Amino acid sequence: MQVYFNSWLEEYKVPFGAVQVGGTIRLRINASCHNPLTAQLVIRQENGSNQFEYFNMNSIDDELFEINHQLPDKQGIYFYYFKFIDQQTNEVIALYGSNNGAGGAGVRYCSESEVVAFSLTVYSQIEAMPSWYRDSIFYQIFPDRFYNGDESLLLNNVKDDIFIYGKTSDSPYYIRDRQDNVTRWDFFGGNLAGIIDKIPYLKDELGVNAIYLNPIFEARSNHRYDTGDYKHIDSLLGDEKVFKQLIDALHRNGMRLILDGVFSHVGRESKYFNYNGMYGNDIGAAQNQDSPYFEWFKFNHYPEDYKSWWGIADLPEINKFSLSYQNYIYGAKDSVLSKWNDFGIDGWRLDVADELPDDFIRGLRRNLNQYSDKILIGEVWEDASRKIAYDQRREYILGDALQATMNYPFRSIILELLTGQIDVQKFAFQLTILEENYPEAIFYNNFNNIGTHDTERILTLLNQDHKLLNLAVGLLCTLPGVPCFYYGDEAGLDGGPDPENRKYFPWTAINQSVFEIYQSWIACRREQILLRQGHFSVFYLNDGLLGILRVIDDSFLAYLINPSNEAKTVNFESICFTKNSPINLKLLANLIDGQTILAKEGQLFLKDDCYK
Amino acid sequence: MQVYFNSWLEEYKVPFGAVQVGGTIRLRINASCHNPLTAQLVIRQENGSNQFEYFNMNSIDDELFEINHQLPDKQGIYFYYFKFIDQQTNEVIALYGSNNGAGGAGVRYCSESEVVAFSLTVYSQIEAMPSWYRDSIFYQIFPDRFYNGDESLLLNNVKDDIFIYGKTSDSPYYIRDRQDNVTRWDFFGGNLAGIIDKIPYLKDELGVNAIYLNPIFEARSNHRYDTGDYKHIDSLLGDEKVFKQLIDALHRNGMRLILDGVFSHVGRESKYFNYNGMYGNDIGAAQNQDSPYFEWFKFNHYPEDYKSWWGIADLPEINKFSLSYQNYIYGAKDSVLSKWNDFGIDGWRLDVADELPDDFIRGLRRNLNQYSDKILIGEVWEDASRKIAYDQRREYILGDALQATMNYPFRSIILELLTGQIDVQKFAFQLTILEENYPEAIFYNNFNNIGTHDTERILTLLNQDHKLLNLAVGLLCTLPGVPCFYYGDEAGLDGGPDPENRKYFPWTAINQSVFEIYQSWIACRREQILLRQGHFSVFYLNDGLLGILRVIDDSFLAYLINPSNEAKTVNFESICFTKNSPINLKLLANLIDGQTILAKEGQLFLKDDCYK
Repeated sequence: MQVYFNSWLEEYKVPFGAVQVGGTIRLRINASCHNPLTAQLVIRQENGSNQFEYFNMNSIDDELFEINHQLPDKQGIYFYYFKFIDQQTNEVIALYGSNNGAGGAGVRYCSESEVVAFSLTVYSQIEAMPSWYRDSIFYQIFPDRFYNGDESLLLNNVKDDIFIYGKTSDSPYYIRDRQDNVTRWDFFGGNLAGIIDKIPYLKDELGVNAIYLNPIFEARSNHRYDTGDYKHIDSLLGDEKVFKQLIDALHRNGMRLILDGVFSHVGRESKYFNYNGMYGNDIGAAQNQDSPYFEWFKFNHYPEDYKSWWGIADLPEINKFSLSYQNYIYGAKDSVLSKWNDFGIDGWRLDVADELPDDFIRGLRRNLNQYSDKILIGEVWEDASRKIAYDQRREYILGDALQATMNYPFRSIILELLTGQIDVQKFAFQLTILEENYPEAIFYNNFNNIGTHDTERILTLLNQDHKLLNLAVGLLCTLPGVPCFYYGDEAGLDGGPDPENRKYFPWTAINQSVFEIYQSWIACRREQILLRQGHFSVFYLNDGLLGILRVIDDSFLAYLINPSNEAKTVNFESICFTKNSPINLKLLANLIDGQTILAKEGQLFLKDDCYK
Repeated sequence: MQVYFNSWLEEYKVPFGAVQVGGTIRLRINASCHNPLTAQLVIRQENGSNQFEYFNMNSIDDELFEINHQLPDKQGIYFYYFKFIDQQTNEVIALYGSNNGAGGAGVRYCSESEVVAFSLTVYSQIEAMPSWYRDSIFYQIFPDRFYNGDESLLLNNVKDDIFIYGKTSDSPYYIRDRQDNVTRWDFFGGNLAGIIDKIPYLKDELGVNAIYLNPIFEARSNHRYDTGDYKHIDSLLGDEKVFKQLIDALHRNGMRLILDGVFSHVGRESKYFNYNGMYGNDIGAAQNQDSPYFEWFKFNHYPEDYKSWWGIADLPEINKFSLSYQNYIYGAKDSVLSKWNDFGIDGWRLDVADELPDDFIRGLRRNLNQYSDKILIGEVWEDASRKIAYDQRREYILGDALQATMNYPFRSIILELLTGQIDVQKFAFQLTILEENYPEAIFYNNFNNIGTHDTERILTLLNQDHKLLNLAVGLLCTLPGVPCFYYGDEAGLDGGPDPENRKYFPWTAINQSVFEIYQSWIACRREQILLRQGHFSVFYLNDGLLGILRVIDDSFLAYLINPSNEAKTVNFESICFTKNSPINLKLLANLIDGQTILAKEGQLFLKDDCYK
């Protein structure tokens, strides 16, 4: 008996990918047998009854079955597979489910208990996003390491017992005791005034138009994920006046700014916890059990034994179910979110979104929805649609919560492809899995990176290979979603894991050849609406070429890359799309067939002249 | 049988203390017995034959024996005791030696093998010293921690991978790895220009007139005991131009400057050793076995296994017997010593003098003797006259070598007295032991301190007690020798062991009450020649008062201190001098009998009006 289904192809499933609640999917499956068959769709909603329901499919012809299945009005992940019963013997003679949990073509199973089902994302609403968002090219700034805008080169409002690097070219270093605790924090002295000073660089030289700032609120560390006071700008960085100047200057230049929202934990020496009394003697949960912040924390033994984030004593964990905390962060009129939203920022990147309850994230979103133009992006390291955290399937991209997530999975497959760990087919499959799983709006909102403050530098991971770097930047600029570049990558900064990935920006030693890679790709992205807004497909060719296709109406753009070490010539006959091609293949063939792509190079092909 | 001898009293030994080679001592001893006695002086020179020689003493009367013994023409420590033989029985009926190796009164022994001998220092020449030296009041500066003379507050010529303190009020901190190696050096940024700026403070406000500078030559650490290049000023501190300005400015102000000579070891990253090639690839013993510096070091396995100072890998030890090294340091025309002597400095403090061979020290001295006005002071932590290092009795204060040593023993007994660990009698005895053991010139040249960069701060050791501090400073200013104050002690700096004892000078938070203690004592020392040049005696009173007496001709000054917690009134009848009183006791009685000294206070009494 032959059975075939492929969730990525229109012949078998319409629509592609995730669907909205109450929507209908049409599923078709091929199955041929000598006896007449009953075909069933077997489906359950994960967080529903947990019982599979069985729906008979219609027989279109002897070899094709179809069902139009309306989904209930309930968001979540649904699981489905197919079951075939011999009408004569009444025996189950075939089961067909997913290959390893992924979409695409499936595999046959012999027993119902073994079946791995296909999954289907059902979201509650199509996410709106601010009109500016998808045209953005972001630049991530780790504030201490970017630029010191003080002409004297001295630091502002220096705190007690910190260390300052002697030279901006010094390699970052954690000052730790033998138990590995950081005992003094190290600063280069970048600040908000420095970012203002560098707006011309960012806008005119590099060409980005949005900034994602690592935390800037009062804290003790140089990374400031140990928030001390959510409502104060850290004095080393500046004050509200200079922050306002920064926002105004960015907006005047048509640029956007999002902040890092770190709501899962606070600093031990915060005004909320105040373990060592740095904020005074009667404030903070660890100083005073009558503190308004007391209920935010969980003490096993007061005050020295408390729940902390990943066991890091410096970061007491917040009970995000605390109404008082929710009010403080987003509910109250003078909440943290409202304060900075009203100040004029354009959105938030949400630190460790996995560790915030869905309801908490929805609360943040409700706050942001009071404004028309603010984005909410969550930090998620895996496929956000399938993420299970703390035994719970996360629903933060199914509606009314996150509008986008940091797309580390893109980064992973880009690196895997360029370092030879996966081939072009696997790359295309992985991309398509993500595309299928994410609600479409979320997929196109993806906040993409090839490096952040939490990863090794791209140049180091690519072993200093500028050709591969060009491909990585090219992929980031051609893939759907919004690219975000990590400060200094464009200047040739390298480095392994934290702290090596947090060097100071080398203002006097920018690597021009690296810079030009970023500059030209950013220009390309900025000038080419297909790259920002085009419908996306991925294809590959049997000899190891990969293509990214972006389409708007009759225009399209193909980015063909050759990650291998030898030049390759396009044999168009071997082309494979993971989904149905959105364009007339002849048009594509006219463009690329017979073209030679040099080793470790890529080439842009354009149908129509919307690419200047 | 009664026997008594006391090396401190003229009745028993003349002269007091050390004697010059070839000189004669007169020894007398009381012994009474029913039978006639033969009394013998038993004496040997330590580094001579090691055999005791026996000299019969003359009987002055039945109870007193005497000998005038001429010492050989050989410097060293001599040991002696007394032996009594019953003339009738020919039996040894008494032996009399030192109590525990100290001078003063001795004790009887029963067997010759048990006897602990008295010791006698025999020096080769009376040490001359520069005319300015004994009138000096020194101030020790740890250069990085004193003052940054750069108006911008930035550091000069910052090196790679150092850390700079954020605030001058920060507590010093070693940045170490888990193996305790310092991985980055920490700097506050004091420099030579800062010392120039503070000459008015030092001279006019505090009143000192000489500076001892911790190392200033090129090095990697903040303490600079890891010399990188003996012939270059460390660039963080300044350059030769500013160093010249400093010397000139000091001399214009009647002030002197001595440097720290660190000749026992160099830095691993020095031009001489150059382990990591920081000075280039073909220079330094660890880079090149043909290096002119190769013979300075001892390699067990080239180049990674080498002899280092106290096992500290960062400090390769020098073979001071290397002629090439001796030439480089003091022998050659352009030697290190000659360079800086010619530059105008006034002398050297010799780091770890114990670890330099006597001949090496004599070589340094020969160099200095080419000048008339340079002092050579050695770092010695113990009684320098009795020091044994590497199984050798050191002879560096017996002539042609050191002119003075850092007098840590004074510091010890001052602290012990003021913290109640010893009583006034013990204090007086310890002082007298030192006085007896040192050649007189050396004793009066002693470079005294109550704290250095190698000790906890005096204020911390005295538990912040300002009254006790006043006594400590008072003792330092009244005892013989030249006082040296450690920077910042006068400003109220406190702190435990290194690095806490190396805080930055608190220019904006000088403790006025502490400052006045130093200021007034320094003024007193400066105005009162008796304190600088007066002959010294120490006495104590039975109820716990201590007296320091300084005498010139008919003038004298007594500093009476009461380290106890209750006021005490002088009962003159209980007075005990450890030596014979140098003055008419009636004159002293007139001054102090019946006077009340308050708890933890001291009082100066002056006969004649040379004390203004």
